Amino acid sequence: MRGGMVGGGIGSFFGPVHRMAATLDGQAEYVSGAFSADAQKSQKSGEAIYLDPSRVYADYKEMAKKEAALPLDKRIDFVTIVTPNVYHFDAARTFLDAGFNVICDKPMTCNLAEAKELKSVVDKTGKVFALTHTYTGYPMVKQARYMVYKGLLGKINKVIVEYPQGWLANFLEDGVTTETMWRMDPQKTGVSLCMGDIGIHAENLGRYITGLEIDRLCADLSHYIPGNQLDDDGNILVNYKGGAKGILYASQISTGEENGLNIRIYGTKLSLYWNQENPDYLIVKNKEGISTTYSKGNRILCHDAQNAARLPPGHPEGIIEALANIYLETYRAIRDGAAKNKKAVYDYPTVNDGVIGMAFVETVLASAASDRKWVEMLQVI
Amino acid sequence: MRGGMVGGGIGSFFGPVHRMAATLDGQAEYVSGAFSADAQKSQKSGEAIYLDPSRVYADYKEMAKKEAALPLDKRIDFVTIVTPNVYHFDAARTFLDAGFNVICDKPMTCNLAEAKELKSVVDKTGKVFALTHTYTGYPMVKQARYMVYKGLLGKINKVIVEYPQGWLANFLEDGVTTETMWRMDPQKTGVSLCMGDIGIHAENLGRYITGLEIDRLCADLSHYIPGNQLDDDGNILVNYKGGAKGILYASQISTGEENGLNIRIYGTKLSLYWNQENPDYLIVKNKEGISTTYSKGNRILCHDAQNAARLPPGHPEGIIEALANIYLETYRAIRDGAAKNKKAVYDYPTVNDGVIGMAFVETVLASAASDRKWVEMLQVI
Amino acid sequence: MRGGMVGGGIGSFFGPVHRMAATLDGQAEYVSGAFSADAQKSQKSGEAIYLDPSRVYADYKEMAKKEAALPLDKRIDFVTIVTPNVYHFDAARTFLDAGFNVICDKPMTCNLAEAKELKSVVDKTGKVFALTHTYTGYPMVKQARYMVYKGLLGKINKVIVEYPQGWLANFLEDGVTTETMWRMDPQKTGVSLCMGDIGIHAENLGRYITGLEIDRLCADLSHYIPGNQLDDDGNILVNYKGGAKGILYASQISTGEENGLNIRIYGTKLSLYWNQENPDYLIVKNKEGISTTYSKGNRILCHDAQNAARLPPGHPEGIIEALANIYLETYRAIRDGAAKNKKAVYDYPTVNDGVIGMAFVETVLASAASDRKWVEMLQVI
Amino acid sequence: MRGGMVGGGIGSFFGPVHRMAATLDGQAEYVSGAFSADAQKSQKSGEAIYLDPSRVYADYKEMAKKEAALPLDKRIDFVTIVTPNVYHFDAARTFLDAGFNVICDKPMTCNLAEAKELKSVVDKTGKVFALTHTYTGYPMVKQARYMVYKGLLGKINKVIVEYPQGWLANFLEDGVTTETMWRMDPQKTGVSLCMGDIGIHAENLGRYITGLEIDRLCADLSHYIPGNQLDDDGNILVNYKGGAKGILYASQISTGEENGLNIRIYGTKLSLYWNQENPDYLIVKNKEGISTTYSKGNRILCHDAQNAARLPPGHPEGIIEALANIYLETYRAIRDGAAKNKKAVYDYPTVNDGVIGMAFVETVLASAASDRKWVEMLQVI
Repeated sequence: MRGGMVGGGIGSFFGPVHRMAATLDGQAEYVSGAFSADAQKSQKSGEAIYLDPSRVYADYKEMAKKEAALPLDKRIDFVTIVTPNVYHFDAARTFLDAGFNVICDKPMTCNLAEAKELKSVVDKTGKVFALTHTYTGYPMVKQARYMVYKGLLGKINKVIVEYPQGWLANFLEDGVTTETMWRMDPQKTGVSLCMGDIGIHAENLGRYITGLEIDRLCADLSHYIPGNQLDDDGNILVNYKGGAKGILYASQISTGEENGLNIRIYGTKLSLYWNQENPDYLIVKNKEGISTTYSKGNRILCHDAQNAARLPPGHPEGIIEALANIYLETYRAIRDGAAKNKKAVYDYPTVNDGVIGMAFVETVLASAASDRKWVEMLQVI
Repeated sequence: MRGGMVGGGIGSFFGPVHRMAATLDGQAEYVSGAFSADAQKSQKSGEAIYLDPSRVYADYKEMAKKEAALPLDKRIDFVTIVTPNVYHFDAARTFLDAGFNVICDKPMTCNLAEAKELKSVVDKTGKVFALTHTYTGYPMVKQARYMVYKGLLGKINKVIVEYPQGWLANFLEDGVTTETMWRMDPQKTGVSLCMGDIGIHAENLGRYITGLEIDRLCADLSHYIPGNQLDDDGNILVNYKGGAKGILYASQISTGEENGLNIRIYGTKLSLYWNQENPDYLIVKNKEGISTTYSKGNRILCHDAQNAARLPPGHPEGIIEALANIYLETYRAIRDGAAKNKKAVYDYPTVNDGVIGMAFVETVLASAASDRKWVEMLQVI
Repeated sequence: MRGGMVGGGIGSFFGPVHRMAATLDGQAEYVSGAFSADAQKSQKSGEAIYLDPSRVYADYKEMAKKEAALPLDKRIDFVTIVTPNVYHFDAARTFLDAGFNVICDKPMTCNLAEAKELKSVVDKTGKVFALTHTYTGYPMVKQARYMVYKGLLGKINKVIVEYPQGWLANFLEDGVTTETMWRMDPQKTGVSLCMGDIGIHAENLGRYITGLEIDRLCADLSHYIPGNQLDDDGNILVNYKGGAKGILYASQISTGEENGLNIRIYGTKLSLYWNQENPDYLIVKNKEGISTTYSKGNRILCHDAQNAARLPPGHPEGIIEALANIYLETYRAIRDGAAKNKKAVYDYPTVNDGVIGMAFVETVLASAASDRKWVEMLQVI
Repeated sequence: MRGGMVGGGIGSFFGPVHRMAATLDGQAEYVSGAFSADAQKSQKSGEAIYLDPSRVYADYKEMAKKEAALPLDKRIDFVTIVTPNVYHFDAARTFLDAGFNVICDKPMTCNLAEAKELKSVVDKTGKVFALTHTYTGYPMVKQARYMVYKGLLGKINKVIVEYPQGWLANFLEDGVTTETMWRMDPQKTGVSLCMGDIGIHAENLGRYITGLEIDRLCADLSHYIPGNQLDDDGNILVNYKGGAKGILYASQISTGEENGLNIRIYGTKLSLYWNQENPDYLIVKNKEGISTTYSKGNRILCHDAQNAARLPPGHPEGIIEALANIYLETYRAIRDGAAKNKKAVYDYPTVNDGVIGMAFVETVLASAASDRKWVEMLQVI
């Protein structure tokens, strides 16, 4: 399979990660890209990964057009979009309209309106659109989901999702330094910083595993960093449809924390615990207080969990492998799409997840803006 | 020092624990008690711990009166109250009025009004009154407090206190069985179950370490157990005076959890993590993401932390030792009280902590009752 | 029950710990002691714990004689010996000969010959003799033993026991300072430092849980501290009777380690892991690689494990409680002994454990002395 | 860079892992292979990874010859050898002699004689030869090594390396089933099973980090599995040149263990702990008993450790990434080799490591064969 990339040039953090993940299993290679709006930087970035210079563009619109003009056996099969958030929407739309499958980094768009519009484009074009909520690619997350769906937990009563990071804590004392902190610029980042960046991962992970939809929430957003106009931390009480309740928090000023996404799910029969920083393990506790740990790669796990592991237990796999799992499912959908197989079920985050994610962010902002009242989850249709 | 006990007879869970803790360091012995409202059971309970039968009573009012009539060198120096919650207030008042020092189990009273009244009795009588918020007796909790007070954390921005238990999860499917579940009876338990029982520990631990007072909160209480009229779970957003924010949750239906009180405190310079189930360790993280673990008994700890450990690092100490530390400080205050030393500072939870605890519970209930709005913390004076 | 203490005066580390443990459950009190060979210090030590001065002695021989002369309802029921190692043998013999039950700190004696002689005294006098291998008092150690005895592990193939401490690492660079380091003086410590002090705990723990007896071993002892004549570290290969093999190591120069006794036992069906520094948990792994954690106090544990816990899961108990469990079993034996109940089984370390422990130490020394050859375990009869 | 592969066809465990690792960073692709001695299977394996059929061979000798005949800009730059152990030696020699760089799975050969001979071939041909001791590719292993080399640990006294696996425990009760267990066949595996397979990893890891060379050792090898002629477990006492001592054990019958390679290194100033199953962390303890945890990707780490991480702390990386790091260094050497830069230092395991590894295995066997005596490490030159 042939891929293209928009964004992700030299110096990019996520570009190389996506390239590693997309090609990890030998099912794809990148042959084209618009790596930077700076034409020279784009060319150099293409060169660095040995691309044919004629397939390197400075502009994603040009790229979509020219790639679409190539013969079928040369043109790209999908494009990966890893630009700053503000370009996600237009780039995705452009490639979908030009007939390409799209794999887009999160947050999908800068706001809910764009998200809904993008969904209509996806629906209209019928192309595959995947959103890289990477954490759902981990094997033990799939095992957790399986256990919920099989009813092993009983009825779910409580869900705690935490996502503490500390990388912005360095700015707590001295405030924003504008040159480096483009992320705190609403023009580039969208309506939210912390919620848009990582809160949506927390929402997505909880929904992926439990299937629960948020009914209403009450959010307390914070701006701890002097000069920051956007949220850098938020604590949220959540009520799910069907009666479960929970807490969701995301923070980028939690001093010393690295990337501590974790989830606890309490059912009437069992509870589950999974922590992204130790991702190969799932801890299950029963009502008798016995705690059992299952490992990635174990043969007793469900099919999806086993399938998502490349190596047996005790051989750590990480976030690149998790992202690669999302790519693999997307490739499967792309191949099937060509074959018009419409009944298959695929395990990758879709445009619907992106719409729900943006609805979540805007609901959180609405609660925060209305004196932190409880508000109903915004409609996604 | 001579102690008496009200409640805590044969079959009691907390009576023996208090006796172990109170006598652990060889500074006190129990010589008297009203262990049960059933006279025969009270006598048998006294007998089981080798008490002089003439010092065993069926009635705490009688006990207070008769003990007060004994000569100074025979009468008890303090009384430990470990009855069901509903008797705490009257028993404490009775002994204070009779001139005795009191050590009372939590929750101090069944509601805020009683708590305030008890405070006025304490103030009036000038006797020592200690409330057994046991978890503040752990050495590494004292080290955490020291680090906050010394400013090592910088300004505190965020406090997460969690208190998950699962022992009520057994009733989630079948509901309350009335004979065993007297705890869910408001007449015996007071206005709250989960918040009154363990929520106040979470509040107390956070305040003990950080010194932060709650300014306002928003509470989502739940009644998951069929037939339960009281809260068995609660998720709370908290704003502290001075700008810190946080989450506090307590739950007794968290399947598989044991006694998982834990706290994370995020400052501008450092963060702290302590977990009651692994109490000998305190984890400190800095802005560079380096995590350091300090152990109980280490010579580099602050004086209070060192003083609270009986053994060097690697020799586990537990909750009985933590409670014993609270008794030791109370004894010190009792001895000093006799000597009229009024300037000394003691490290045990006081009647003020009890008042604040009940104000916290009633504030939580007020928020829950007012459609889960944000409400200001009730006045404690 | 009335106890006496030999050694353990003011400034002692273990004296107070034994007093806390012995009296924790309200079944005994200390009424007598010879706390120091310095008469004045002994008196002051007795005074500090409120003893009748007439029951405080400067000399254990005098104590044994005078206590034996007291009427039955006044004299001590047992004596706790917590002197420097070199006095254990004679003090124990003296009290046994005078008709007293003895609880003795480990190592039981300074060498195997004394140990065997002490055993003959115990056998002859018929008194209760308990050796405080404290770690066998932990609830989850009892659960581990139960699981082995029930055959749940299958046949045991491999046993790893580690006991790293680091407290002597401070002397690695500068060598022994004679005034503080009496422990490195063979005259006071006996034939071995590290093996006699903690190696025997490792041997005892392994044997307590597995029931396996050492058949032969190969030992590599070290003297890392400049000027130290005794072993401060030792690595040992072990073969057990019946075919199991293993490793046992003890070290006091393992920089940064606290008191890290831990054991792993591998059977054909299950394996077990227990770590003294986190003693409330036992980890069990099966052939499918599933790891299950059991907690102290859980109702599904075996009778002995449940019985050894004073509090439910999640309420940490420590080493004082473990030692108290050994005292409780000893008291039970003492009471039964008076009642001539000879069939009962008691769960405390006996003089046989002491003989085997010293045989182990001398076997280790014999291997080390014979160019680190494999040697057979010395006979204990 | 263009790679070829010998072995690693369809159904192979390690083939895909090597392909993922070798190509992870976009610096190489596989263009050729002899994936199986079965010509049809080899072709199918090549097809599965989209190779030109003309570059797929059934025979590595043919492959070496035909690839050598291709023009420089088409022929492979290196070959990866992942056959059963017994073919490593001849395949490696064949490609080296044909002028190719070689990356070879471990154990390098079936015995020491072959290993020495292979070294002479490497020396003679001047080609790059890398041995995939994967665990040395982990970032925190590099940090550990750095800390030792910088002297931060002081003098090293003690090294404990453990490598427990449990995958053979399934055969403990029923014995070898010959069809599946070709690994226990000395004809296919070489002189040792457990030591050759994983003991050498333990030896290599210890030497990589500490730089210490084994002076002598005493080994107790076991054959727990009925019918197994080779070692499935071994406990070894080790003395290093310069005075350090230690324990090294490897086991494949440790029920429930996954891939638990771990190392503890005790110096006079600091100790280190690293565990392959949680590889992103390095734990450092000092003489004061303070434990500090460093994370992969942290900016305060040494250059090599930082360089070996693709993502910041909290984004787990695993064993594929570790292996990829070894490939990256090998590529660097290959490129430099072409440029005749002979002074550079590369961080990948070499043929010398392979010789030492086989010397270690044969020394262990020699000790086991001589009644488990201490024996000197065999000469490697």
